[in-house]
Amino acid sequence: MLNRVVFAAVAFSVAILTQGVDAQDLKSWNDGPAKSAITKFVERVTTVGGPEYVPPEERIAVFDNDGTLWSEKPIYFQLAFALDRLKELAPTHPEWQNNPTLKAAIDGDMKKVMAGGEHALLEIVMATHAGITTQEFESIVLKWIKNARHPQTGLLYTEMVYQPMLELMTYLRANGFKTWIVSGGGIEFMRPWAQSIYGIPPEQVVGSTIKVKFEMRDGKPTLVRLPDLDFIDDKEGKPIGIHKFIGRRPIAAFGNSDGDLQMIQWTTAGEGARFGLYLHHTDAAREFAYDKNSSVGRLDQGLIEAAKNGWTVVDMKKAWKQVYPKAATR
Amino acid sequence: MLNRVVFAAVAFSVAILTQGVDAQDLKSWNDGPAKSAITKFVERVTTVGGPEYVPPEERIAVFDNDGTLWSEKPIYFQLAFALDRLKELAPTHPEWQNNPTLKAAIDGDMKKVMAGGEHALLEIVMATHAGITTQEFESIVLKWIKNARHPQTGLLYTEMVYQPMLELMTYLRANGFKTWIVSGGGIEFMRPWAQSIYGIPPEQVVGSTIKVKFEMRDGKPTLVRLPDLDFIDDKEGKPIGIHKFIGRRPIAAFGNSDGDLQMIQWTTAGEGARFGLYLHHTDAAREFAYDKNSSVGRLDQGLIEAAKNGWTVVDMKKAWKQVYPKAATR
Repeated sequence: MLNRVVFAAVAFSVAILTQGVDAQDLKSWNDGPAKSAITKFVERVTTVGGPEYVPPEERIAVFDNDGTLWSEKPIYFQLAFALDRLKELAPTHPEWQNNPTLKAAIDGDMKKVMAGGEHALLEIVMATHAGITTQEFESIVLKWIKNARHPQTGLLYTEMVYQPMLELMTYLRANGFKTWIVSGGGIEFMRPWAQSIYGIPPEQVVGSTIKVKFEMRDGKPTLVRLPDLDFIDDKEGKPIGIHKFIGRRPIAAFGNSDGDLQMIQWTTAGEGARFGLYLHHTDAAREFAYDKNSSVGRLDQGLIEAAKNGWTVVDMKKAWKQVYPKAATR
Repeated sequence: MLNRVVFAAVAFSVAILTQGVDAQDLKSWNDGPAKSAITKFVERVTTVGGPEYVPPEERIAVFDNDGTLWSEKPIYFQLAFALDRLKELAPTHPEWQNNPTLKAAIDGDMKKVMAGGEHALLEIVMATHAGITTQEFESIVLKWIKNARHPQTGLLYTEMVYQPMLELMTYLRANGFKTWIVSGGGIEFMRPWAQSIYGIPPEQVVGSTIKVKFEMRDGKPTLVRLPDLDFIDDKEGKPIGIHKFIGRRPIAAFGNSDGDLQMIQWTTAGEGARFGLYLHHTDAAREFAYDKNSSVGRLDQGLIEAAKNGWTVVDMKKAWKQVYPKAATR
């Protein structure tokens, strides 16, 4: 009997909780069009009895990671991880000296690496991310993320997450949303720290994957990472990843590059109230300023589509009081 | 301020809720070794301050579907769906008459189909499950599942779910567990009805997938199902699927066939309290009796490993007071 009472109490409390939490906690957001678009949307979908009410289980919000939840310049942080790992492993891999891409990366010749395009990046990731068990990889990621620092700011990479986006995710969760990451980055690179940094559990992280193999080692089951791509969660891959992992269409999508365009299209094409948002990096002083001419995080077609479809565009310089949780020393 | 109070109230209520709900709701389970193994395990991992306490976010329980949550005889229910669909579509696909497998299936010659093994089944699934959008497929599944009936019991397929397993999942959820399906069946075949039948939301369903393609149709983004296998969530595929979709190791796994062996091995090989369970179909009168000589749901190596590793084996005939929610008329 007690169980029933407690259960009813929880149900009741959750009901209150999801009927709209006010926006006072978006304290790093300046009053203006972006903040107001966000809070108005949340109000519409959480107003019980309102014409656009969405039940909590369908309040799925998806966030790109690189450039949307944390910085991505001068190179994707996962690439910095891969390069550190490459240099660490190089002494035991003399054969890498015969591979022009890997040799350039080991020598720190990033210009040459970048000239190789996506293929070169994949080669580096495959060389450094495979051949070990999933548990070993997790330990390596955790060790790196706790210690590695950004070359320009001197901050830990996890200190380069965006304070306003942390507040936004907290605000959405307080309003009954489930927040998911849908990133082109590696799913196993993000999962080990997504809970402590973003409040997002491993099972709500969608990303690119490489193949793994089940294997008994000394009578213990292990999963070994293979140097084979399984799925690239970018561009057209994002709605495919959403469909595969989440299995229902989000009602809100947040991105910053053309790689997020199809995710926002897919999200906003559903019926009922929908929300699409592009973060526009306009803040060279506090972070970085880039869009259509950037090789990392290019935003070109996305801005055109945002204007055409009425998606919210966040002008970082104007909309945000603060960028990182602590002040950076660039 | 109100938000904080409400939030605290919810946190407090959830804390009470997850500190052990008694087992009175396992009312279709006879007292005996299986029921007692389940409730003892739950007590161990939910006792706050106890040596084997597991925080709620790590209480992941995974369930096979066919033969574990619902029946799978005489053929997997998804195959019954595929065959119905094949017959429905046959008039508009004269070319199927030239394919021996498809022709045999259309003619109802199941002996010939079964002789073709897995390859034949895949051919039927590919012919019937692809070429349409994901939304169209969902509608077709929902329509079928609401109307199709089992040839022997006359019940709707969703009336052939196991009442004791429904109670078990409810009991686990009331104790702070997240319940997941990890099935060899198609993820998109299960998701449309898993919430209403099992109380499991789409994002907690893991299964086999076929490839999909993102495509703009009349300016609207769509996902089109392709006749290409993406991932088979069976045997070694189950721990791989768990790792990919959930991203952490479950603490409890429930299966009924050798196809679930690696999932139970992977689950029980983790540190701390772990629980592995095999449902043994021993009840020819109320359901079906089969194990090592069955082509569907074969259980052979699994029983040997269960004995060796101390996993719980449920003797359906002895352990269950009732099989289906309603009495079946076989």
